[in-house]
Amino acid sequence: GLMQAELIAVGTELLLGFTLNTNAAFLSRKLAELGVDCYHHVTVGDNPVRLKETLVGALKRSDCVITCGGLGPTVDDITLATIAKTLERPLVLDQDILTQIRGRFQRLGIPMPQSNLRQAYVPRGAIILPNRIGTAPGFILPLRKKILIALPGPPRELEPIFITQVLPWLEKRASPEAVLISRTLKLTGITESEVDEKVSDLLKLKGETTVGIYAHPGQVDLRITAKHKTKAGAGHNIRRIEQEIRKRMGALVYGADDDTLEEIAGKLLGRQRKTLSVAESCTGGLVGHRITQIPGSSAYFVGGAVSYADAVKSGFLGVPPGLLRKQGAVSEEVAKAMAQGIQKLARASVGLAITGIAGPAGGSKEKPVGLIYIALSNGKQVLCRRYTLTGDRSTIKWKASQSALDLLRLYLSGQLQ
Amino acid sequence: GLMQAELIAVGTELLLGFTLNTNAAFLSRKLAELGVDCYHHVTVGDNPVRLKETLVGALKRSDCVITCGGLGPTVDDITLATIAKTLERPLVLDQDILTQIRGRFQRLGIPMPQSNLRQAYVPRGAIILPNRIGTAPGFILPLRKKILIALPGPPRELEPIFITQVLPWLEKRASPEAVLISRTLKLTGITESEVDEKVSDLLKLKGETTVGIYAHPGQVDLRITAKHKTKAGAGHNIRRIEQEIRKRMGALVYGADDDTLEEIAGKLLGRQRKTLSVAESCTGGLVGHRITQIPGSSAYFVGGAVSYADAVKSGFLGVPPGLLRKQGAVSEEVAKAMAQGIQKLARASVGLAITGIAGPAGGSKEKPVGLIYIALSNGKQVLCRRYTLTGDRSTIKWKASQSALDLLRLYLSGQLQ
Repeated sequence: GLMQAELIAVGTELLLGFTLNTNAAFLSRKLAELGVDCYHHVTVGDNPVRLKETLVGALKRSDCVITCGGLGPTVDDITLATIAKTLERPLVLDQDILTQIRGRFQRLGIPMPQSNLRQAYVPRGAIILPNRIGTAPGFILPLRKKILIALPGPPRELEPIFITQVLPWLEKRASPEAVLISRTLKLTGITESEVDEKVSDLLKLKGETTVGIYAHPGQVDLRITAKHKTKAGAGHNIRRIEQEIRKRMGALVYGADDDTLEEIAGKLLGRQRKTLSVAESCTGGLVGHRITQIPGSSAYFVGGAVSYADAVKSGFLGVPPGLLRKQGAVSEEVAKAMAQGIQKLARASVGLAITGIAGPAGGSKEKPVGLIYIALSNGKQVLCRRYTLTGDRSTIKWKASQSALDLLRLYLSGQLQ
Repeated sequence: GLMQAELIAVGTELLLGFTLNTNAAFLSRKLAELGVDCYHHVTVGDNPVRLKETLVGALKRSDCVITCGGLGPTVDDITLATIAKTLERPLVLDQDILTQIRGRFQRLGIPMPQSNLRQAYVPRGAIILPNRIGTAPGFILPLRKKILIALPGPPRELEPIFITQVLPWLEKRASPEAVLISRTLKLTGITESEVDEKVSDLLKLKGETTVGIYAHPGQVDLRITAKHKTKAGAGHNIRRIEQEIRKRMGALVYGADDDTLEEIAGKLLGRQRKTLSVAESCTGGLVGHRITQIPGSSAYFVGGAVSYADAVKSGFLGVPPGLLRKQGAVSEEVAKAMAQGIQKLARASVGLAITGIAGPAGGSKEKPVGLIYIALSNGKQVLCRRYTLTGDRSTIKWKASQSALDLLRLYLSGQLQ
């Protein structure tokens, strides 16, 4: 069985820090899910001598070596030639690849540069991995006891090739002792240390199933990771811990894995056939921007106002100038008036309003930077919450948008306390 | 002279793909600017045997080895002990660090866990790099002919330590043969292939000064990189190429390096004491969000409307319902009416309006996904531009916001053609 993989990224742009090695993280996650251990990531430049040394070292200690990058048509692309030389495998012309590359250039209506001919060569005995996005194909080269896999460097080429072609191939051969699966529960409206306190026993779990805590601005993630000899077994262990966390944290868990607050709130609005309008002060449009990132949001989002200046708050939203003078723009009363104003004006089911001080200037002792009021009106009732957020301007804006979307989610799902 | 560095990242979370190795890119850029070559990046897990092997290999081939991570207080943090064992250097208690760590916990009002005592030990002969953000200090360990530098893993701890403490130390010792400096010119309103055509001779430059082209959504970067034996010489060569590019590309160059369109447009508004209001349809609030990311933007940004639904376009902005019916919401006439409406309503010097189809649904043969109109009104004149943008929903929104901010920049700087 295949047990141990090693990743080699090839590219001087990585060594100069111009490019972030995101392929390493992507491939590592996929390998871990497959139960393949990965003990080394190595990056070398477009240098045949150092790549050869690295390949030799990697093939000595690892069962499966995956290279990323250096398969393109330029003279800097040295991976193919170096692999052939290191393994003493002659390069042979593959007619299928040649036809494919020629077709690509024909469709683009330009003659194929001579340099692209090089990309139609592969080491003898290689299984070719066609590339539908770029011109450079990848390949799997089974060696006597090892496997060498060469992939193109651009993530948008590497990722589909790996998912659709390499993964199924490896799955058949990996026969892993254990697979590793993870699931991330996402919480908001609670601090990292509060979460830590409530699940401290789970965070101390040792062994096959573990829980990690990760704090982000306006969000705490709990990642459950399970190692088990079967995928089903790992899934079962994850569900067991997930249920326990959900039991303890309740409505604070807003979603899992790729879920976002804007998506969850949008789904609730859609299902309940409700419409939303937003009046934003300190967030400057961020809440509207996030809501409209979701395809189909025009079905429930009618729009709103960015009432940055007080004149806009009173002119657009009908917030009484006297209230602004007396209470200040950052107050419960003004937040409520904004929510009521936008709900009425836009004739939406829900009006959501945010007012606060994002900083770095504009704070005072009574109203410090980070003080935010968020109000929600449904045309009958209006409610308001007060938040004190920390961070720089951009972080406070982000956290305020998290709080606003979460208030909306809790209201729509009947979980507001 | 110190010539060759190697980076070792320590952490199982990197090998599992849970964390992206951003330290490698950061350190590589800084080392290149210093003229220190970096030929290898290596990542290993929290495993003493493999870390030892990696350290030995790195110290054999590189003059300066930098480790990142594994200096924390937990049992998984193995870097310190492994370095001491590999180099046969005893660990000695440093009273200053101990006092600092104790002070940190005192200020937090919690007793110092016994595990943190470990962090007060350093290899004998090490130069300590105090850590103001976290508890784990870094250190520089001068060896007979080599240098070992150990840094904490979290970027917000590593980066300030490197900039303020390691860089000045290395600068004195690096005596490089050449430094490498780069400067990125940022263009918008032009495609990558159009830029390519205009500077193709520069992109072919070989040798000490080179130019690279990098396309991003709604933006093309030209990065000039100069290698020279002095910083001044490299700077001179960069300026020479920069002037040539600016001569050819003119107003299409909106800034350099860390400049953003929202910052540049904001500075112009501030200097000219003009105010801005925005009416956004398909961008959903993104333009307002970007403008308000800049501290002090409340001096010139009064706010605006997110007129997602047609009812909001007519109700808020006074766009005649007849015009909406006849021309459709995505039309030059409606864009102009929105810009005029928001400028008047918000009493701003400038009204900027965006209407379009972000997709994936909502397009037609006459008005396809990606069709955007952007209008600008100063209360007297109103102008409008038509764009056909490509990409997914999120990309089209972003590109539309780039186009809107750029139209504003060109208007304010008198460069509109």
